[in-house]
Amino acid sequence: MSINLTILGCHSATPRVNAHPTSQFLTINNRTFLIDCGEGTQVQLRKFKLGFTKIQCIFISHLHGDHYFGLIGLISTFMLHKRNQELHIYGPKGIKEVIILQLKLSKTWINFGLYFHELTSKSSELIYEDEKVEVHTIPLKHRVYTNGFLFKEKEGMRKLNMAKIIKQNEIDVCDYRNLQLGKDFIKEDGSLVKNDVLTLPPTQGKSYAFCSDTMYDESIVPIIKNCDLLYHETTFLKDLKELAKTTMHSTAFEAATIAKMAEAKQLIIGHFSSRYTNLNDFKQEAQEVFKNTALTSAGKEFQL
Amino acid sequence: MSINLTILGCHSATPRVNAHPTSQFLTINNRTFLIDCGEGTQVQLRKFKLGFTKIQCIFISHLHGDHYFGLIGLISTFMLHKRNQELHIYGPKGIKEVIILQLKLSKTWINFGLYFHELTSKSSELIYEDEKVEVHTIPLKHRVYTNGFLFKEKEGMRKLNMAKIIKQNEIDVCDYRNLQLGKDFIKEDGSLVKNDVLTLPPTQGKSYAFCSDTMYDESIVPIIKNCDLLYHETTFLKDLKELAKTTMHSTAFEAATIAKMAEAKQLIIGHFSSRYTNLNDFKQEAQEVFKNTALTSAGKEFQL
Repeated sequence: MSINLTILGCHSATPRVNAHPTSQFLTINNRTFLIDCGEGTQVQLRKFKLGFTKIQCIFISHLHGDHYFGLIGLISTFMLHKRNQELHIYGPKGIKEVIILQLKLSKTWINFGLYFHELTSKSSELIYEDEKVEVHTIPLKHRVYTNGFLFKEKEGMRKLNMAKIIKQNEIDVCDYRNLQLGKDFIKEDGSLVKNDVLTLPPTQGKSYAFCSDTMYDESIVPIIKNCDLLYHETTFLKDLKELAKTTMHSTAFEAATIAKMAEAKQLIIGHFSSRYTNLNDFKQEAQEVFKNTALTSAGKEFQL
Repeated sequence: MSINLTILGCHSATPRVNAHPTSQFLTINNRTFLIDCGEGTQVQLRKFKLGFTKIQCIFISHLHGDHYFGLIGLISTFMLHKRNQELHIYGPKGIKEVIILQLKLSKTWINFGLYFHELTSKSSELIYEDEKVEVHTIPLKHRVYTNGFLFKEKEGMRKLNMAKIIKQNEIDVCDYRNLQLGKDFIKEDGSLVKNDVLTLPPTQGKSYAFCSDTMYDESIVPIIKNCDLLYHETTFLKDLKELAKTTMHSTAFEAATIAKMAEAKQLIIGHFSSRYTNLNDFKQEAQEVFKNTALTSAGKEFQL
């Protein structure tokens, strides 16, 4: 079990020479996901040699350009590369129309399954699930309909306690699977050995919560409670907290307050406004409230 | 009178770390135009410090992504920068729908006049004209509806031949404008001095023809005849002339043949396929037919 996050861009608004809009590349339990896809994301994926043809699902938080203008280009590149693996796109209602219109105008033939999962709910919902991973939406408060995403590893199977198993003599390799699944063991004499005598608790699944863009909103705390890693946008510092409110963004102080309330293990911050030149000011402001805070930057990796 | 062209990108298909899709920045008689706008164009404009807020008109050849996916991002940036100057966009029918849909989805407020001039004609037409510049379409043959563009400086006023004017004694500064406009001069005794005795021919207006994407098509020759600078796409070398035909692109040999037939003064080539690593092969192949050929590359300038 592992989570590996690579930041592709962490600046707000317009793409600039050394400031790329939001996008993150996430591998979780061998699943490969892309989160947001600002203009130029496909070049960033190439730059960091991330093997982007493996991307199975793309999660788009909202339909502001700095979070999705690179999506149509990435899909077009997949087609030119003759992709045949399915691609699932999760994002606000409207995303399908805009992508399909552009494919239609270019008379492009789609040579792989392209599935849109359009989101409209204002409550958190489970939008992706397989045997090892779950993804839930985190409804955010922004100028347009926006979701963050909570990526969770599912709890694994119970671990065999071999010392105890061997002592029982009767337990065969064929029984191991049932033990891992939590079943008790019935001996030949009909007596029962409780599962927790023979096994140890499974490794706890890790979780990553992505929250961009949003104003300060305590209602997300129960959804992201105890997450291992929290990305929360910090467009502004607290000197511009009124502007943050008007534009429905957050300050570093506010992001850190959310991290503290949620009892997150680590906070990472980004979506910096271009007006700030010293990004360490963001870290400093956040750390006054929540010590374990790190800045994001293009190419930076976070591992759990 | 002057034409200055800066190449922003000259590669085909997908944007890569050091290979940018088609876009060109053109100043002609103090008008500022953008030709095509692949993904990442706004970053290229910034990189080469081209003062892109001055762009008055954007000409889009066709709706394949490598020629226009950067347009919505550029328009969004103009809005964030609180542009108030009008912006005119010339391109195939459909371009308005796709841009407006994306603005609508992001609930973006347009704070400047945004005008779309959708093209449908299959014959060359005059699409832009002011007192100093004309732009005509060059219908091209590609997989979707495509136009090249012919940018022409209008002929200036006639030049005063001061030696001859002074000899006449009677001619006042107030008469100069009429002479520049080509009028004859009437002396006090009622006799007439023909204009061409007192003036010299105006500087000839220069022209730039942009042709991308297209298969080999001699029918464009009369439209671009005698142009001073011709950009013609060369996606392939002649070893892949059959593929060029199938995909409706051109080889370097074909581009040079068009330049020769059109008696262009200079040919510049681009839209190189990523399969070629040595771009000098394109130059060499073209120069076998048309000597005055240059490669385009990002940041390169051509002046007339």
